[in-house]
Amino acid sequence: VIPIRIEPQDRQALVEAALGVRKCDLVIENARIVNLFTGEIYLGDVGIYAGFIAHVQGDPDGLGRSEEPLAGIQHIDAGGLFLIPGLIDAHVHIESSMMTPARFTEAVLPTGTTTVITDPHEIANVAGVEAVEYMHAVSADLPMRHLLLVPSCVPSVPGKEQSGAAFNVQEIEHLLQLERALGLAEVMDYPGVLRGDRRMVNILKAALAGGRFIQGHAPFLSGRELSAYRAAGPLSDHESRTIQEVRDKIRAGIVVDARESSGSRNVEAAVSAVGDFRYLDQLTLCTDDREPEDILTAGHMNDVVRKAVISGLHPVDAIRCATLHTARAAGLSTLGAVAPGYAADLILTADLEDIRPEMVLVAGQLVAKQGTMVATLKPAGHPFEQINTVDVQGIRAEDFRVPVPVTHGTVKTRVIVYRDLLSSTTDFVDEELTVRNGYLDITGRPDLKWAVVINRHAGNGQRGFGLVKNMGIVRGAVGSTVAHDCHNLVIVYDNPENAACVAADIVAMGGGISCAADQRILERLPLPVGGLMSTWPPAKLAAAAARMKCVMRDLGLQEMKNPLLRVAFLTLAVIPNAKLTDLGMLDVTAQKMVPMFPEYQ
Amino acid sequence: VIPIRIEPQDRQALVEAALGVRKCDLVIENARIVNLFTGEIYLGDVGIYAGFIAHVQGDPDGLGRSEEPLAGIQHIDAGGLFLIPGLIDAHVHIESSMMTPARFTEAVLPTGTTTVITDPHEIANVAGVEAVEYMHAVSADLPMRHLLLVPSCVPSVPGKEQSGAAFNVQEIEHLLQLERALGLAEVMDYPGVLRGDRRMVNILKAALAGGRFIQGHAPFLSGRELSAYRAAGPLSDHESRTIQEVRDKIRAGIVVDARESSGSRNVEAAVSAVGDFRYLDQLTLCTDDREPEDILTAGHMNDVVRKAVISGLHPVDAIRCATLHTARAAGLSTLGAVAPGYAADLILTADLEDIRPEMVLVAGQLVAKQGTMVATLKPAGHPFEQINTVDVQGIRAEDFRVPVPVTHGTVKTRVIVYRDLLSSTTDFVDEELTVRNGYLDITGRPDLKWAVVINRHAGNGQRGFGLVKNMGIVRGAVGSTVAHDCHNLVIVYDNPENAACVAADIVAMGGGISCAADQRILERLPLPVGGLMSTWPPAKLAAAAARMKCVMRDLGLQEMKNPLLRVAFLTLAVIPNAKLTDLGMLDVTAQKMVPMFPEYQ
Repeated sequence: VIPIRIEPQDRQALVEAALGVRKCDLVIENARIVNLFTGEIYLGDVGIYAGFIAHVQGDPDGLGRSEEPLAGIQHIDAGGLFLIPGLIDAHVHIESSMMTPARFTEAVLPTGTTTVITDPHEIANVAGVEAVEYMHAVSADLPMRHLLLVPSCVPSVPGKEQSGAAFNVQEIEHLLQLERALGLAEVMDYPGVLRGDRRMVNILKAALAGGRFIQGHAPFLSGRELSAYRAAGPLSDHESRTIQEVRDKIRAGIVVDARESSGSRNVEAAVSAVGDFRYLDQLTLCTDDREPEDILTAGHMNDVVRKAVISGLHPVDAIRCATLHTARAAGLSTLGAVAPGYAADLILTADLEDIRPEMVLVAGQLVAKQGTMVATLKPAGHPFEQINTVDVQGIRAEDFRVPVPVTHGTVKTRVIVYRDLLSSTTDFVDEELTVRNGYLDITGRPDLKWAVVINRHAGNGQRGFGLVKNMGIVRGAVGSTVAHDCHNLVIVYDNPENAACVAADIVAMGGGISCAADQRILERLPLPVGGLMSTWPPAKLAAAAARMKCVMRDLGLQEMKNPLLRVAFLTLAVIPNAKLTDLGMLDVTAQKMVPMFPEYQ
Repeated sequence: VIPIRIEPQDRQALVEAALGVRKCDLVIENARIVNLFTGEIYLGDVGIYAGFIAHVQGDPDGLGRSEEPLAGIQHIDAGGLFLIPGLIDAHVHIESSMMTPARFTEAVLPTGTTTVITDPHEIANVAGVEAVEYMHAVSADLPMRHLLLVPSCVPSVPGKEQSGAAFNVQEIEHLLQLERALGLAEVMDYPGVLRGDRRMVNILKAALAGGRFIQGHAPFLSGRELSAYRAAGPLSDHESRTIQEVRDKIRAGIVVDARESSGSRNVEAAVSAVGDFRYLDQLTLCTDDREPEDILTAGHMNDVVRKAVISGLHPVDAIRCATLHTARAAGLSTLGAVAPGYAADLILTADLEDIRPEMVLVAGQLVAKQGTMVATLKPAGHPFEQINTVDVQGIRAEDFRVPVPVTHGTVKTRVIVYRDLLSSTTDFVDEELTVRNGYLDITGRPDLKWAVVINRHAGNGQRGFGLVKNMGIVRGAVGSTVAHDCHNLVIVYDNPENAACVAADIVAMGGGISCAADQRILERLPLPVGGLMSTWPPAKLAAAAARMKCVMRDLGLQEMKNPLLRVAFLTLAVIPNAKLTDLGMLDVTAQKMVPMFPEYQ
């Protein structure tokens, strides 16, 4: 583990290195140092010892230098490049990259992200405590700081879906003891918090008692509810989509983690929101969810900083939002600045507005150079990666046929209807559909497709059926074990044969995404680690994901930027209004299950 | 004790108060709220429950209000006054006010200081652990937040002076367990820190291991030494006197507590220093040492804020430096802002540039109104206040005569010479002085006076003699048990009879300050609590101190703003160059004792 605090036995040696009575391990010479305490930029040298900055030598006031140059065992000539602290992602689900922590590190470290504050919420919903411990264990020896928040809402919507685990205060307290556990991850169940539900009150109490950082999640909250949420304990929010939301949250003392994920791009609004504010220190930046192709082509936190600058933020302010502000908000007192006593997590870049690191250092070690990893990652290999988490029975074609309470004629059927081809907002609508031989016949309705969510955790065969309208898929079947937030197996299909084909393929892969048409697999993306992640190298994974997106577009999802999420969000029981879980169709607003055939309830 | 964190049992009720399903205890209506997160000022109402802010209702964007007005059991109409957080003193020695904690609270709370981060360094040097526990105990039930730092350097200069206590890591660890102990107080022994002296290394290690706040003290440090000091652990400094020092320290990541004490006025320089900096969040404000008259006439933290504004700081920035910045630096997550979840420590004032609080609230309770206390202080009365800490033998006139190694003629004598009448900087000079009957005769030398420091702690009669030149006192004797930092009994005198007179008076008072001339006491200021503090009401004490200053001016110290400190600083073994302790004359720069008669060593 990369130490985040100076080891007691190294402290005096660091003092000696600063004084010059001991050689530094490394001296970075001739860098344009960006001082985030003052906003100044000046030429200077930085001495590093045991992973921490011992001394910064510069002459910002032009007084002439009197000190002896720093002596080091190694030297790097920065050649006048800008030197800034490594970027910190204030909130990220690594699972959304579909990469294991090691592969994720390989992908993002060269872009300048040196610390991630992770929330293993997705994998926790699959495999609980064991999964969180896995994410913690395999990130221990990576050349990047993985600081973990304990998922607070597993499952997200208790009683309306069945995930692979349920966290109560006992699990939370247990996981808060992990070495790199910072605090509590996004407290999504804000209605529960405001109502004072026992589960959430106890979980918050445990984190508060330990003085831990509590990350919030408060979409659309304002006024009294926002104050109540803040008073309950959560300190931050990354769900602010509008200018007004950002303004109100910062005023209420909430730290706004402006998000630029693959799906939600909120940085522009956040930057507009703070334009007339005298202070920016309540603003940080995060990626939340970025998919593989996005990371490999656009970048990671460097892309978020770039977006903030394009949106109007001063580059030094933007960098501060992605470093010092986040470190302070999370209580990370050695991260986020180029100054003595701070961790030597550093980026050398030619451009502050468009950071493409020439070099990335973590704890004083060169880990990436010109976009390529230099550090070698120890081969991960963890028993958890061998577990097949897709425990599903009943995948023959007949298992995907929905019996109807009538034999012929028509039946009133409740259908999940998409408002448009881009957003995942849905409603219920009732349709009078044709019945033939005891089954619905939707062959004459290209706007309708079948959908099923099969519990893959309990092996109990529990499944919920539904019909979706205007989802975009015109033919074939699309299945995925990435299905927020419980990550059960979801399949949208035109006929039972294609569904069976996809289901069998996903079971065979041990999880992943698969498409079929005409009873033939068109494309498959194996995600065998928890049904969410792959151990493939990032480039291979991104290419496979890109092929999968092409196929999905062929099947009808051509308008979507990321068609992978179309299916994965059908199950997301916290977004209004009509969703499907393994327990059936859910009215999100009313928070109750609804029958498919309302007349035969 | 006023809770600084929301009590677990109150949390849900606070949430309910925010939501409006429960009445607030108090609603402050129609206030101009100063939002320190944004820098905005807007009209609004603030709801308070159980000492914390539940909700802030305003309409900063002019959208029109839709919420129901806040319902409260009590209401205050602010009538459009500004509402700001209570001021926080980043570093203060209460002993310098000569008031006990209760009396100090009475004096400063009406000026708007609601939190003090105290360093009981002076009283700790007198009576050690017991004294620190006393300061902690008697501040427990005061209507003001007394947060304590554990004195780190008792005595300040080990081996060169004898104080009433010596703190090693055991005492520090013990005191860090006190309920309101925040961390370690000003680490004054910076040479020891840089050298890696065992005592300081162990003390820092103890504080670092507990993740405690470590307050620094780094006068004149710059360059490598400054970096080394910061790397060793201390986070702040209140000893920056020049613009350059402030700039260099902020660049190095040090929090600069700009000081406006009675003796050292550094705020103007600090404000000039940060003029071109993009960020100010490393700047805080403090009083360090303020004497009674100064507090009663000029004020306390409100005076420091006023000075910062006069020096050019934007009023909202100045208030932020005196509230939110300090809270953040010290890890006080519920202090320093008017926002939900923050403690309801609040000031209502008509003027932001010259804060004279109309009302002061602590934890939602009105404690002062228009400069007068409203809260009643429980009568203190603590056994420590009854202890006579002046344990001195040998106070007859003959005990103040200095034997000389020759009987007649002259002898080369080392003398402490003041550079001028205002600063306390001194040097050694050798003089050829007349000897009569085995004693020095200085009757023909009005520029010379005798000085003695008598150990008052050990009762061992240890005393160090010296001669002072150009100190300012022209006649009589001035004695004090306020004598930094060991607070032994120091007397400067023209003849042994006057010295004996003063010594007897101070012993009789159990400590304090006394002046005599012609064997008659001219004025006395009893400080019976540890020889440093009085239980008198602030106004009475300030009047007595003012009379004492008049008398001292009569005796020759007319040019000094605060003549009380002239004698008290003669013993201050950390200020260059020539000082007097109970062990004799000290060469501060060389850190060694020097003989009075160098030819007879």
